[in-house]
Amino acid sequence: MPEKIILDCDPGHDDAIAMLLAHGSPDIELLAVTTVMGNQTIEKVTRNALAVARVAGIAGIPCARGAERPLVRSIETAPDIHGESGLDGPELPEPTIALDERSAAQLIIDIVMAEEPGTVTLVPTGALTNIALAARLEPRIVERVKKVVLMGGGVHVGNWNAVAEFNIVIDPEAAHIVMNERWPLVMVGLDVTHQALATPEVAARIAAVGTPAAAFVGELLDFFGHTYKDAQGFDHPPVHDPVAVAAVIDPAIVRTIAAPLTVELTGTSTLGMTVADLRAPAPSGCTTHVAMDLDVDRFWALVVDALERIGHTDF
Amino acid sequence: MPEKIILDCDPGHDDAIAMLLAHGSPDIELLAVTTVMGNQTIEKVTRNALAVARVAGIAGIPCARGAERPLVRSIETAPDIHGESGLDGPELPEPTIALDERSAAQLIIDIVMAEEPGTVTLVPTGALTNIALAARLEPRIVERVKKVVLMGGGVHVGNWNAVAEFNIVIDPEAAHIVMNERWPLVMVGLDVTHQALATPEVAARIAAVGTPAAAFVGELLDFFGHTYKDAQGFDHPPVHDPVAVAAVIDPAIVRTIAAPLTVELTGTSTLGMTVADLRAPAPSGCTTHVAMDLDVDRFWALVVDALERIGHTDF
Amino acid sequence: MPEKIILDCDPGHDDAIAMLLAHGSPDIELLAVTTVMGNQTIEKVTRNALAVARVAGIAGIPCARGAERPLVRSIETAPDIHGESGLDGPELPEPTIALDERSAAQLIIDIVMAEEPGTVTLVPTGALTNIALAARLEPRIVERVKKVVLMGGGVHVGNWNAVAEFNIVIDPEAAHIVMNERWPLVMVGLDVTHQALATPEVAARIAAVGTPAAAFVGELLDFFGHTYKDAQGFDHPPVHDPVAVAAVIDPAIVRTIAAPLTVELTGTSTLGMTVADLRAPAPSGCTTHVAMDLDVDRFWALVVDALERIGHTDF
Amino acid sequence: MPEKIILDCDPGHDDAIAMLLAHGSPDIELLAVTTVMGNQTIEKVTRNALAVARVAGIAGIPCARGAERPLVRSIETAPDIHGESGLDGPELPEPTIALDERSAAQLIIDIVMAEEPGTVTLVPTGALTNIALAARLEPRIVERVKKVVLMGGGVHVGNWNAVAEFNIVIDPEAAHIVMNERWPLVMVGLDVTHQALATPEVAARIAAVGTPAAAFVGELLDFFGHTYKDAQGFDHPPVHDPVAVAAVIDPAIVRTIAAPLTVELTGTSTLGMTVADLRAPAPSGCTTHVAMDLDVDRFWALVVDALERIGHTDF
Repeated sequence: MPEKIILDCDPGHDDAIAMLLAHGSPDIELLAVTTVMGNQTIEKVTRNALAVARVAGIAGIPCARGAERPLVRSIETAPDIHGESGLDGPELPEPTIALDERSAAQLIIDIVMAEEPGTVTLVPTGALTNIALAARLEPRIVERVKKVVLMGGGVHVGNWNAVAEFNIVIDPEAAHIVMNERWPLVMVGLDVTHQALATPEVAARIAAVGTPAAAFVGELLDFFGHTYKDAQGFDHPPVHDPVAVAAVIDPAIVRTIAAPLTVELTGTSTLGMTVADLRAPAPSGCTTHVAMDLDVDRFWALVVDALERIGHTDF
Repeated sequence: MPEKIILDCDPGHDDAIAMLLAHGSPDIELLAVTTVMGNQTIEKVTRNALAVARVAGIAGIPCARGAERPLVRSIETAPDIHGESGLDGPELPEPTIALDERSAAQLIIDIVMAEEPGTVTLVPTGALTNIALAARLEPRIVERVKKVVLMGGGVHVGNWNAVAEFNIVIDPEAAHIVMNERWPLVMVGLDVTHQALATPEVAARIAAVGTPAAAFVGELLDFFGHTYKDAQGFDHPPVHDPVAVAAVIDPAIVRTIAAPLTVELTGTSTLGMTVADLRAPAPSGCTTHVAMDLDVDRFWALVVDALERIGHTDF
Repeated sequence: MPEKIILDCDPGHDDAIAMLLAHGSPDIELLAVTTVMGNQTIEKVTRNALAVARVAGIAGIPCARGAERPLVRSIETAPDIHGESGLDGPELPEPTIALDERSAAQLIIDIVMAEEPGTVTLVPTGALTNIALAARLEPRIVERVKKVVLMGGGVHVGNWNAVAEFNIVIDPEAAHIVMNERWPLVMVGLDVTHQALATPEVAARIAAVGTPAAAFVGELLDFFGHTYKDAQGFDHPPVHDPVAVAAVIDPAIVRTIAAPLTVELTGTSTLGMTVADLRAPAPSGCTTHVAMDLDVDRFWALVVDALERIGHTDF
Repeated sequence: MPEKIILDCDPGHDDAIAMLLAHGSPDIELLAVTTVMGNQTIEKVTRNALAVARVAGIAGIPCARGAERPLVRSIETAPDIHGESGLDGPELPEPTIALDERSAAQLIIDIVMAEEPGTVTLVPTGALTNIALAARLEPRIVERVKKVVLMGGGVHVGNWNAVAEFNIVIDPEAAHIVMNERWPLVMVGLDVTHQALATPEVAARIAAVGTPAAAFVGELLDFFGHTYKDAQGFDHPPVHDPVAVAAVIDPAIVRTIAAPLTVELTGTSTLGMTVADLRAPAPSGCTTHVAMDLDVDRFWALVVDALERIGHTDF
């Protein structure tokens, strides 16, 4: 039976690919897409999400707009990576589906409370603002959610400062809230997503799918590759967000370890660091898990397979 | 025309008196009562709010339960001041009105978005968790609210640590959110509420009202007086929360000064301090105001008048 | 018997007057003058100290140069108040006495260990860097010092941020060290020094002394008055540092209260605040005292008297 | 020509071995031994240092006692690792050499200022309190020191909290001072010292030396092995401090990378973390280097060789 997920994202090039993977995979039932500011403003990423939904052929599920700013801090976006639109590179089609009237947090609450307990997995691939708001607004969702599999953070590597990752550092209080709730949580951070590099071989396999959606992904990776080279010196861009979706499709794709996990909120040089205590085996009852290694081949096979299953979409 | 307010509180002895003042005053139209953990757990303060509603004869308006914990920190309550029930002293009647099904934050949003812009004043007398959640969930409320008149904080005095007040320090991130939004805000803090002391003369004037509700207030003040003596060395207890309601009824009851205001979130000795910059006149456009002095006689006259107007209630 | 003091300063206009007061008072035996960066760089304030020594006729005591930077933070100076030289306004004479070869911290240690226990009062009127270094380098000085009477901090007022004073905030770790040692300590902060205003009447009384040193003070106050008006909006400049010296000459000149006192090291809006806990009487054994009120007339009388006693100096 | 070093330590089992390695190596000229509180109080570690000097046959060089407490924080020791004496296990001989009268910081200053510029390497293997005090007391030493090779910190591993190492976290402000000065600095942290494990093979090689000093080391390792097993779960104890000495004897024994390095002073979960920015090649002029890998065989060969050269000592 496919895994029911809500994808909470800020498209964003890799978020777009995460949407395509979630929609194309036979092992995922995508219940809703929600948006959160991050890679760009909430207006831009919400428009991008709807455009990508059309590219992917996503229809019949609710899409809701979420937080326009972090809980406590000022907003920070990433135009040097994702461009002015948040999804620079390909031409974006006009959206064909309408936004749900509810806020992202309320939609998440409504779905989790309506579905059977223990069946819905939350997959945030942006700042954790919506998830934190939902948990505070309706605390009963915490025990009803099956698990949270998030893209963000990193144990031994950062990208927005020496030790912190963008999704976490832009709303560290929200991340702190989410990581300290009692739901099972898997952090898919830079330790593994920096292994998910879109090499020329990967790009060639995606191009070979030969569909409009695959071509769209090709254009995304092309732009993303240039900005990651210029901004962070990567030879091939790390494609972060779909790894979280892949870790729902097939948990074995990442090697995880249980470890106490919290978010640094007051550090001068470490603000937003996801601090995992690896000094000893995790205490029994530890609900937080950290992904440390990725089966890279299997990951890209899942992406390619999803694109093939999506097939020809019209946009 | 009376001022429309939503009273967001954690009864709590002084919150109970704030409810009575708001209900009894002809200058206030009480739109709703919402609750938030603080003086005691959310279960206890919500039950207390409903019981006090019966004592006051409040009916026909929604009452909603709010946050069970602070945004980021762990919950902290004040049994040494308010007792195990949160309202120790008088016997509490069984509530006769039912809770609204919505969360406090959602009820606040719904009312503010339904009423005419610029007509609803928020009066929080507990932690600012519900108000912060509402502002993040529906940012449009910020420009629709007339003003926020809150009890909390202090410029030159603290009670929970050397420089911080209980309502603020138990959820400093929520207070930071509320104080940094662009709505007009009046902080009614310890600088003035420590002037609102329930002396024997005050107690005698309240007893002279001669109604069950006034007797109820007498029992509250009696208990409150003992705990404030034991815990903080006060000869007569400061009755904080009704001062915020009084400052809506008659803004002239407090002398306020405009000043930039923020909440300290990372201090070791100053966590939760409300930092007002009084070094120079406030910049034009400053939306935050701090109450510095109280017209004590007029304040108690408003309380006594409200009790007289409430008259005999049956509980 | 006069009080033996070491004056540790960063001249600085008000430091210069503190030197003159200490030298001219019959109730002070000035053992040494040491310098510390602050109002200007260590080179400048050290030169200024030697020049002021000549103005005052100070000779036969050691003067030593101290810290060129704060313990942990980067250096910050105050040219908007004290000018580019640190003592702008009057023309400065060439120094006639030579610097001691020892560092300020070592000189302080040597004097305190050589004098009778309980006889030496430290009077820092700048950053507390030298005093902190001395206490860490030779911990035995703490119990040998009679007391520390420092100019810095403030309980209800700040000048460098909303709640912190310059001398403390430029080296808060040093201040933390000094305030947490077990020596008797009197904090003469902005609460009282903002009462020590050099009004035209004060200036006239000083001018009437009619000596070169008094004229020098007049020129200092003239410059200082302009910068304090421009930078902080004062009609008459607060003359901070001599108040600490005056509080050694006559402790009754300030009303002090015992209170636990610490320095905020991690606050975002409160860095460098001197946090006094005034909620209850100080615990027995509390060694820190805070000056809250000043006998303004007596203060200026001490300054004028000292200038008269200094008489005609040749520079 | 042998490298001139000052060993600043808190013996401590591994500090003792560092002393033996420094004394026995033909490539080191040990100029002085100074002590600092840490593994135990300053009284205990100073006595231990003098006792180890006798075991090693160290004579004719000054030994000075240093800081009894950290700069800003309260003292914290490590009896669970080093026992109540700081050097539990072997019986300690009575010291035969006397302490220098100067403080450790002053002795360091005097030696550095007396030797040729660029010839003295500081090797701190405990808290950095003495080095920080020396740098602040006499800033000219910074450009005269050849380099600082310290044991402490870690990039990807902590031992006293999830991400911080004992020597750094017990006096983080001192470490911040030392790491932000402009001298060349090599951090030999847990990333490499956790590779320097005293396995049974290592213990056998040391035992085979057959001298009293080697037997003394054997007893140290035996005790240390048990406490490291009990307190931190190590099968074989990591022998941290001699690795820093070995990295002076033969810099090639560690692989280092240049990286900006600072110490976290305000983090809630990261206090005392040594934060290295590894996201990109270090900027030119970067003076801080981090050791990442150790040539384990060569390291132990140096230790065994030093013990053999020390030969039979009489204690």
